[in-house]
Amino acid sequence: MTVNGRPQAPLMTNTHADRVKEVARLAGRPSRLRRREFLAEGPQAVREALRLHLARHADGQDGVVVDVYATADALERHPDIADLSHQDGVPAVRLVTAEVLAAMSSTVTPQGFIAVCRFVDVPLEAVLSAAPRLVAVLVEVRDPGNAGTIIRAADSAGADAVILTGASVDPYNPKTVRSTVGSLFHLPLVLGVDLDGLPERLRDAGMTVLAADGYGSTSLDDLQDASAQRRFAVAGEARTDDARTDGSPVHLEDAGAWLFGNEAQGLPAEATAAADARVAVPIYGSAESLNVGTAATVCLYASARAQRVR
Amino acid sequence: MTVNGRPQAPLMTNTHADRVKEVARLAGRPSRLRRREFLAEGPQAVREALRLHLARHADGQDGVVVDVYATADALERHPDIADLSHQDGVPAVRLVTAEVLAAMSSTVTPQGFIAVCRFVDVPLEAVLSAAPRLVAVLVEVRDPGNAGTIIRAADSAGADAVILTGASVDPYNPKTVRSTVGSLFHLPLVLGVDLDGLPERLRDAGMTVLAADGYGSTSLDDLQDASAQRRFAVAGEARTDDARTDGSPVHLEDAGAWLFGNEAQGLPAEATAAADARVAVPIYGSAESLNVGTAATVCLYASARAQRVR
Repeated sequence: MTVNGRPQAPLMTNTHADRVKEVARLAGRPSRLRRREFLAEGPQAVREALRLHLARHADGQDGVVVDVYATADALERHPDIADLSHQDGVPAVRLVTAEVLAAMSSTVTPQGFIAVCRFVDVPLEAVLSAAPRLVAVLVEVRDPGNAGTIIRAADSAGADAVILTGASVDPYNPKTVRSTVGSLFHLPLVLGVDLDGLPERLRDAGMTVLAADGYGSTSLDDLQDASAQRRFAVAGEARTDDARTDGSPVHLEDAGAWLFGNEAQGLPAEATAAADARVAVPIYGSAESLNVGTAATVCLYASARAQRVR
Repeated sequence: MTVNGRPQAPLMTNTHADRVKEVARLAGRPSRLRRREFLAEGPQAVREALRLHLARHADGQDGVVVDVYATADALERHPDIADLSHQDGVPAVRLVTAEVLAAMSSTVTPQGFIAVCRFVDVPLEAVLSAAPRLVAVLVEVRDPGNAGTIIRAADSAGADAVILTGASVDPYNPKTVRSTVGSLFHLPLVLGVDLDGLPERLRDAGMTVLAADGYGSTSLDDLQDASAQRRFAVAGEARTDDARTDGSPVHLEDAGAWLFGNEAQGLPAEATAAADARVAVPIYGSAESLNVGTAATVCLYASARAQRVR
């Protein structure tokens, strides 16, 4: 059997095949770490994985996608993914029954597509040497959904990278991959970074280090106001709370790295102490705190906006 | 046995007691609808339920909390909740074993507290007649976590109410209650509203109706720029995309109602057509779309900021 002139493997029907079990095992961390591979499930994630694969292939780099599995139904529903899979350098889609796909998947609704992908994270140095303008740092963020939300929000805000400290959730776990809706393949990820010394390295790379901290002394509102005033060249005194501990000003439109902390404990003291400013997202209503994903969204968009309108 | 001079019911130890089953049944919609009661689980939600209960009691209104169940451990860890529960007009806490609490709970970690609460939603008219400045409308938002995130973000942004159309998720389901982290008790909720005629009613109440729509022709950035320019009295032409379909301007600092749509389908055409503007949150990176919770957070905070700095 051939598709577009290429030989195609026969339909996989055996839910107990070794290959099916191997794919399913990637839902677990030990198997992921051993093979340095993870699962992208659903049409959006698989589409973005294939796009990144093709972009890398065109650059002569190693690909991302190792294998793609799909049901015939799903391929028919998403002809653009079928087209992507027919390009040069892309592994041929292996047709599977819905039962085989379900047996491979970590989710109850894999929506007809699974790709086995190579780890996509990059070394910290690769990010820092590329003159980053906006970076999100997850410091012990533990909830897979929160991590996914922040990665997607960072992508939306045009961030240059997301950095996760060692004690953060594994972003290759299926729940995080799913909640990034493909954004995992859009911007560089750095994993397992030691918090110790990180703020200094970010600063050395030209970035202001901003700790998102509900108890912070600097209001994000004030930073945004000061930035807008500079933009519109409105005369006015610099605000005293709009300054680093050494007295030099913090400007939202400058290159910035945001530190976001753990859901329950927030940022550790060493992280807030090492930051240039501790910035609080204002709470106008009665909520006691913000979800870390919500706070990160507001902070990253505030930076992106200030940087874009300079 | 008495606590603060009040008689206390004996420790509940029987996981099979009728009362335990009745509480547990509130995780299901039929039981909730029949009794017009729902579960608040965990210390934060129970604390906020008790606070609202006390505020209403002080106003001579009906209370919110019907029963509170807690383990002795949890009461010891949260003395402020024990204090709240000793106030006049508050139902006495019923001490239960960890096993009874687990049997009542919909979650694996109820953290020692469950309150049975009366429905807290209010009629649409009560919201509209109170000169609202900022309102979030959930149009067929189906995911419990997304609804909870938006309710919490609306609370944080100081919104006056959250309105849910009939086809939206039931906000009294335990997952949504949990993800609001108490915000459900902070601002009025209106449920089961018919979308038909709603934009007109919001407009009649003095609000600009803004449809959050990734394909919208008005950029939230432009609305924010125009608002900042008015604030700083910067001379400049009104932007053509900053206008209603009838040509009159849309100002972010005016009272506003945001419509947020379904995760997969977005807003129905009748909603976007009836809005004063279709507003897109800008995507600076490669993400194809924003999670509805993320988009709502950015929109509500943009409105709150524009309204506060007038």
